[in-house]
Amino acid sequence: MNEHSIRIIGIDPGLRRTGWGVIEARGSRLSFVAAGTVTSEADDELCDRLHDLHRGLRGIFDRHEPQEAAIEDVFVNKDARATLKLGQARGVALLVPATLRLPVAEYAPNLVKKTVVGTGHAEKAQIRMMVKILMPRATFDTDDAADALAIAVTHAHHRTARRLKAVAGL
Amino acid sequence: MNEHSIRIIGIDPGLRRTGWGVIEARGSRLSFVAAGTVTSEADDELCDRLHDLHRGLRGIFDRHEPQEAAIEDVFVNKDARATLKLGQARGVALLVPATLRLPVAEYAPNLVKKTVVGTGHAEKAQIRMMVKILMPRATFDTDDAADALAIAVTHAHHRTARRLKAVAGL
Repeated sequence: MNEHSIRIIGIDPGLRRTGWGVIEARGSRLSFVAAGTVTSEADDELCDRLHDLHRGLRGIFDRHEPQEAAIEDVFVNKDARATLKLGQARGVALLVPATLRLPVAEYAPNLVKKTVVGTGHAEKAQIRMMVKILMPRATFDTDDAADALAIAVTHAHHRTARRLKAVAGL
Repeated sequence: MNEHSIRIIGIDPGLRRTGWGVIEARGSRLSFVAAGTVTSEADDELCDRLHDLHRGLRGIFDRHEPQEAAIEDVFVNKDARATLKLGQARGVALLVPATLRLPVAEYAPNLVKKTVVGTGHAEKAQIRMMVKILMPRATFDTDDAADALAIAVTHAHHRTARRLKAVAGL
């Protein structure tokens, strides 16, 4: 199996708070690198908020140099205004790895929960706990940062299978 | 009144096609500069599509150097997936003027129609026709480009009122 280490960033996008978490995977061994939250001010103009998110995330990519990115495939909300806001933040978040030409994988929220906690219907507290069990040195300032780490862990688990599928043309 | 000319870009965002139109306004005189459509391939990965839109729009801004931008405040669709897609494209479109620190105004679709056609319930054909009447030299390759010109015209009409309101603290 592949024993080279790979650095993965997970992103949990949101207009008010975008969580991010960087891990390193070597085979099945995972280690925590860094995690945090990029925020934008609710009182600012939408344009400025998107700019702040983009600049913040771009800074994280520059500092931690992930080689692959993973992002949550969002819950589509019944509240169309909320979905639009989330979409705008998500578009800006996706643009950062796209500009750097990094591979980006998308995972459904219940797959993230299933991978990290073992069930598709986990609570936020269970995700935080499992992230700490998987990577005892992990620290995170918000639930969004913990979710982002869980997304990165999900990608670490699924990327080999995805790649083999791609090679086999499946 | 302000007789300096101002260059305005209108943007009609969409993941598949983003229309853009640049005009120059000197007092109440409007003149056409350029218009067109930035597209992304439906078969490509979302990331690559957003990157293509961003790069395409950024190129338009670099070439035509607008000083202010106007964008349609979207119809929130009942189809949440469509709203999410539109949101992602719109976030990327807004990021271009935001990064360049240009003012961006948002206008509701019915205000655009009312300003250009005179009624809030205009057909696409009426918008195309009125754009041609207002700026006989205007050319556009798609309805999206014509809509973008209509959005730019709307901003030319409303920007003075907006500015006076801002100065008066209203």
